[in-house]
Amino acid sequence: MYNNAVINLGAKCNAACAHCCFSCSPASTQSMDPNYIRQLAHELAENKKINLISFTGGEIFLNYPFLQELLEIIKPYQKRITLISNGFWGISRKKTEQYFNDMEYYNVTNLTISYDEFHEPYVKADAIKNILECSRDFSNTSVALNMAVTKSKMSNRILEYMGESLLGIRVTKFPLMPVGEAKHEDPDSFQHIYKLSNERSLHCPGFEVVYHFDGQIYPCCSPAVFDTKLHLRESMDQTFDRTIEKLNSNLLFYIMRKEGFKWFIDTVQNNPEFNHIEIPEQFSSICNICNILFKTEENIDLLTPYMMNYYESMV
Amino acid sequence: MYNNAVINLGAKCNAACAHCCFSCSPASTQSMDPNYIRQLAHELAENKKINLISFTGGEIFLNYPFLQELLEIIKPYQKRITLISNGFWGISRKKTEQYFNDMEYYNVTNLTISYDEFHEPYVKADAIKNILECSRDFSNTSVALNMAVTKSKMSNRILEYMGESLLGIRVTKFPLMPVGEAKHEDPDSFQHIYKLSNERSLHCPGFEVVYHFDGQIYPCCSPAVFDTKLHLRESMDQTFDRTIEKLNSNLLFYIMRKEGFKWFIDTVQNNPEFNHIEIPEQFSSICNICNILFKTEENIDLLTPYMMNYYESMV
Repeated sequence: MYNNAVINLGAKCNAACAHCCFSCSPASTQSMDPNYIRQLAHELAENKKINLISFTGGEIFLNYPFLQELLEIIKPYQKRITLISNGFWGISRKKTEQYFNDMEYYNVTNLTISYDEFHEPYVKADAIKNILECSRDFSNTSVALNMAVTKSKMSNRILEYMGESLLGIRVTKFPLMPVGEAKHEDPDSFQHIYKLSNERSLHCPGFEVVYHFDGQIYPCCSPAVFDTKLHLRESMDQTFDRTIEKLNSNLLFYIMRKEGFKWFIDTVQNNPEFNHIEIPEQFSSICNICNILFKTEENIDLLTPYMMNYYESMV
Repeated sequence: MYNNAVINLGAKCNAACAHCCFSCSPASTQSMDPNYIRQLAHELAENKKINLISFTGGEIFLNYPFLQELLEIIKPYQKRITLISNGFWGISRKKTEQYFNDMEYYNVTNLTISYDEFHEPYVKADAIKNILECSRDFSNTSVALNMAVTKSKMSNRILEYMGESLLGIRVTKFPLMPVGEAKHEDPDSFQHIYKLSNERSLHCPGFEVVYHFDGQIYPCCSPAVFDTKLHLRESMDQTFDRTIEKLNSNLLFYIMRKEGFKWFIDTVQNNPEFNHIEIPEQFSSICNICNILFKTEENIDLLTPYMMNYYESMV
């Protein structure tokens, strides 16, 4: 457990997608200090418990020399690497081949391309086609395509256009959640495939340590978590191991693991001080509920006495 | 390495797809002896090196009591289980929920559904939709959809019809290979996405131990391998560990791992006794080339002196 870490390098992106959970854009400058990121790369690389390190942004290939510098730091420690990108660089065949050669060299076992109707105005579908076709020659890097979709933007036209380039590629559509820029989408466009009445769907899909470009450390990589106060950072020199300790010992996360979200939902629905929190009957992902519950410090403070009671009844 | 095993239970299937690599059908009776399969399940379950056991057929849910009996044998040993099915049972919501409950109980971490335009005449798309929708309530079993496609049967219509049921489901299209029933497909329909001139694509994607219903043990689970003489079985009481020993020590597999298929292709193309073997310039999968090279004992016998020379030049 907890054998991986994610680093969200910065918000700068060639695109400014209407659905972006981080509201990234070419004008965005938010980022962690490069020296801090270098030091973090060293720490994670040296930690023997970690076997997978992931990088995303923003668009991480925009500052390729810096990405390469980080991969160079990690290389001697033989970790597996995942890169997440919108694939804008695929438009150049030469660059694509160079990047795949580099990915092989740096033990990038997974490249995840985020592409869908929201990315389409900024990245040509042909760029993605080039990447998928080129990936056939580099079997050490497994390429997957993740698509954010809504009722009216199912990206089927894109998938049809991609044709044979998709052969052998894992494609997964995810329902868009109303976070980041996507908050401005038509509320009717979200796909509410889960029901509150179904207790089975009220569980957290899992934890991982994510270093975000706002300086915080978050307990997972769901787009919904970055708009919550589920913060794990105590200090800038906090080690990965200390973060894991926090994840394991924090009462809120303990209850989340043990009882699922039902405990929190019941608490919120049965007590008047939570009247300002509205839990929808249907939702696109449990992460959406998590986002609503833990959006503010105030909500967490109001939940604290109930969590303490839970703790006391346990011991 | 080699921490998993696959059992192909039998050729019986509710469908008789035009593309089936095993030519399965309702009339098929080919199967391993049930007592042998029980004994095999015991052996694999008890082997501490194995952490994943997969079952496929034919259609394994046709004889559900037998499948359950095997899962019951394995349960105490806490292995991960993968099941591969065409999903015909999804047409009953009640049965689908029961099977998912059972899968959770038996630690079935992965359910792979094979469905595409070839399966469509035998299994309703609505059955698959039910399965995918039901899977949202059972987060311990990850469901994936694998589709066999050709130029004229890309299954895009099916994907569009599946709509929101596909949210969160990994979908992968695989180019059909001309093996089994698919040999009768129009030769122009195959998607030849790999080129012989590209040496990078001439490598085996990997080995695993597969117990096939013809009684043989094969070194991988590609549909193309079952029509080769790449047999690993010496005796009926051969242990999993002995099979691994064979995989590791066999000279043919050693050269395949070390040199890739290029060594075999060069040997075949540069020596007149292999004139009967035609290696296509373009192909849909390297497994296709493997199938052509090792289809007959004669081919392997003709390659043997060259392999021996290779061995002697090594030592």
